[in-house]
Amino acid sequence: MITTHNGPQPADFTDVRATNLAVVLRFVRAHAPCSRADIAAATGLNKTTVSSLVGELIDRRLLRETGLTEHRIGRPATMIVVDGSPYAAVGLEISTDYLAAVAVDLRGERLLTWRRSFTGQGAGSSKAVAAVATLARRAVARVRDDGREVLGINVGVPGLVDAGGVVRSATSLGWRDVGLRDDLRAALGNPDYPVAVENDANLAVLAEYRYGAHAGVANLAYLTGQAGIGAGIISDGRLLRGARGFGGEIGHLAIDPAGPTCPCGRTGCLEAVAGIGAVLRKLGHDSLVDAEIGVADVVRRAQQREPEVLAVLTQLGRDLGHGASILANLVNPEVVLLGGYYAPLAPWVIEVATAELAARTVAPQAGGARIVASTLGYNATATGGAAGVLETVDSGRLPTA
Amino acid sequence: MITTHNGPQPADFTDVRATNLAVVLRFVRAHAPCSRADIAAATGLNKTTVSSLVGELIDRRLLRETGLTEHRIGRPATMIVVDGSPYAAVGLEISTDYLAAVAVDLRGERLLTWRRSFTGQGAGSSKAVAAVATLARRAVARVRDDGREVLGINVGVPGLVDAGGVVRSATSLGWRDVGLRDDLRAALGNPDYPVAVENDANLAVLAEYRYGAHAGVANLAYLTGQAGIGAGIISDGRLLRGARGFGGEIGHLAIDPAGPTCPCGRTGCLEAVAGIGAVLRKLGHDSLVDAEIGVADVVRRAQQREPEVLAVLTQLGRDLGHGASILANLVNPEVVLLGGYYAPLAPWVIEVATAELAARTVAPQAGGARIVASTLGYNATATGGAAGVLETVDSGRLPTA
Repeated sequence: MITTHNGPQPADFTDVRATNLAVVLRFVRAHAPCSRADIAAATGLNKTTVSSLVGELIDRRLLRETGLTEHRIGRPATMIVVDGSPYAAVGLEISTDYLAAVAVDLRGERLLTWRRSFTGQGAGSSKAVAAVATLARRAVARVRDDGREVLGINVGVPGLVDAGGVVRSATSLGWRDVGLRDDLRAALGNPDYPVAVENDANLAVLAEYRYGAHAGVANLAYLTGQAGIGAGIISDGRLLRGARGFGGEIGHLAIDPAGPTCPCGRTGCLEAVAGIGAVLRKLGHDSLVDAEIGVADVVRRAQQREPEVLAVLTQLGRDLGHGASILANLVNPEVVLLGGYYAPLAPWVIEVATAELAARTVAPQAGGARIVASTLGYNATATGGAAGVLETVDSGRLPTA
Repeated sequence: MITTHNGPQPADFTDVRATNLAVVLRFVRAHAPCSRADIAAATGLNKTTVSSLVGELIDRRLLRETGLTEHRIGRPATMIVVDGSPYAAVGLEISTDYLAAVAVDLRGERLLTWRRSFTGQGAGSSKAVAAVATLARRAVARVRDDGREVLGINVGVPGLVDAGGVVRSATSLGWRDVGLRDDLRAALGNPDYPVAVENDANLAVLAEYRYGAHAGVANLAYLTGQAGIGAGIISDGRLLRGARGFGGEIGHLAIDPAGPTCPCGRTGCLEAVAGIGAVLRKLGHDSLVDAEIGVADVVRRAQQREPEVLAVLTQLGRDLGHGASILANLVNPEVVLLGGYYAPLAPWVIEVATAELAARTVAPQAGGARIVASTLGYNATATGGAAGVLETVDSGRLPTA
């Protein structure tokens, strides 16, 4: 069936029960507390169906009845809310210089936020798998100690991730064709919960869309500020993945043909001129291993108005504005978020970037796009991993009770 | 409500009846002939609701019962199909050198295809409105002579069109802030059918998605080959418009900083180096008024292997491959269609363009993207205009019976 309109979508006609469970679950998430009658009235599903769906969701401990009742004409109606307590979703991130873990419950409450330094560059995938598996095991144990079931694990990686959870390439980690999902499943002893792998920028923008300062903004873009630069794009309320999940690869667009050669072999890539590694090298930090320390030093020197530092950050602003303008021209976002190591540098970058964005975007006022610093810090990708797990539940793939 | 999953979408809870009418209409379009029981079984709507919905769609003459009946266990079921005969959708295009009109019925049957030359450049919007209104009136009259009601009119323009049908800017037409929708409505005497205006590339890709050689391909991009270059993008089965409808503006991305100055004031824009105007000028045709004749001449000279022509087309291939690679990296389409005047030049362009695309795309094998020539010819945008009208019906905004 062919349809491109942006209104309500048709059921996919394959699993009506799952579709309707998802509709009810999302309605309650958005409108709780509400009654079965509210759900029936709002969704058009008949009351018998709604009662059966709500019953199943209560049995699976996704919803619960409250003491609250609503006194309308007729008998009082029991009010229903999403039950946060029985489940948790775990998100992880493998970065070039740290690992992160976040767990959230079904209501989006954050249960844990961990981060530890890790030498990802040249570490090799087996070492990374072992390290992330250890972190995942600890997160799962913590969550289970609180009496929760794990809904799933979702790992963000700075690279191309295909539908099978294989990292086709991750330049900044030096990976090629790493079967991360299966390796991690094996390292975790083939657990009963699903394990997924996703591009880090996709997860970061998902976190922004669900929990960030611009949550719910239907057209949103996020630029990762790690060794590599990736874009996560929310278009009309949905994550833009593309045909094979390879969308958002902005880091190797040639923005300066006269620029430096990129490790990828191309010339003048956005990543080669504006990646945090390039910025730190220009300012005398020759390694990414302690990028956080390096960036803190750059911030300190910028606060002291060191001309060399201000010049480098001004150029960074121009380059990021150029990158943002490509997004503004092609996908017309309302907000472009600067994430990762760019966020602390934002005070010296955003004004120049905004001017460059406006100059390079065809639409007046950059099509309404604003460049802002992400507020989710270094946990954006891991938080998005957990959000991704919740999305699968929201789409009707419910945990088996 | 926040959701980004790509499975079945929730109803938007505002107009359940319209949503369900749309679900039934799209199901019948995809699965006709089918019975009321089939629809109920597939959509999860209860049979009473389905009968009432089908009844309304029959009353509005969008569906009709066939003589066919399906003999299952129990009494025979009357089979239902989409009724093509009562309605028509009209699409139009305003180009720099022609006007086009297409009408299709609810089943997608083409009812008329007209094209006339028109000097759009510098003609001024009032002259264009008068000319397109005349063409629209004739198309509407023809459709009504066949006893059909007009579902709506949708006009494609090579420029930025906002949600109010105002053309914010159309460089190749020399327009700025033209209230085309309202002007056209007025010129048509404020008709009872809706009048819409949309970017030409968006409509062209909609036509490809619905009727083209790659219909149904969920991630699809289209490059217009007119005086300007625009991209139409279908992402995961939906038209990518962006926050203000300004997505797909690929024509003024700087692909060659050492290149010529663009009428837009920027340097090395894709349009300035690879627009059909630039190609014709390089080959001694100094005007776009007879672009079709010019392109036919270029084709003839290319067939005769004129080195100068082959060199220009090779460079065109490189530049279009570069443009396609930006789409491949950011939105990862399966197919990039070369439309308009690029289609006849495709035999001398595609091989070079494909190599450039592969070289500049991060994902292996260009993320699976192929560059192909559009087969819809000069009617793609007008056909997409009609398709756009049908989309609004498919989304539940039904004609008032």
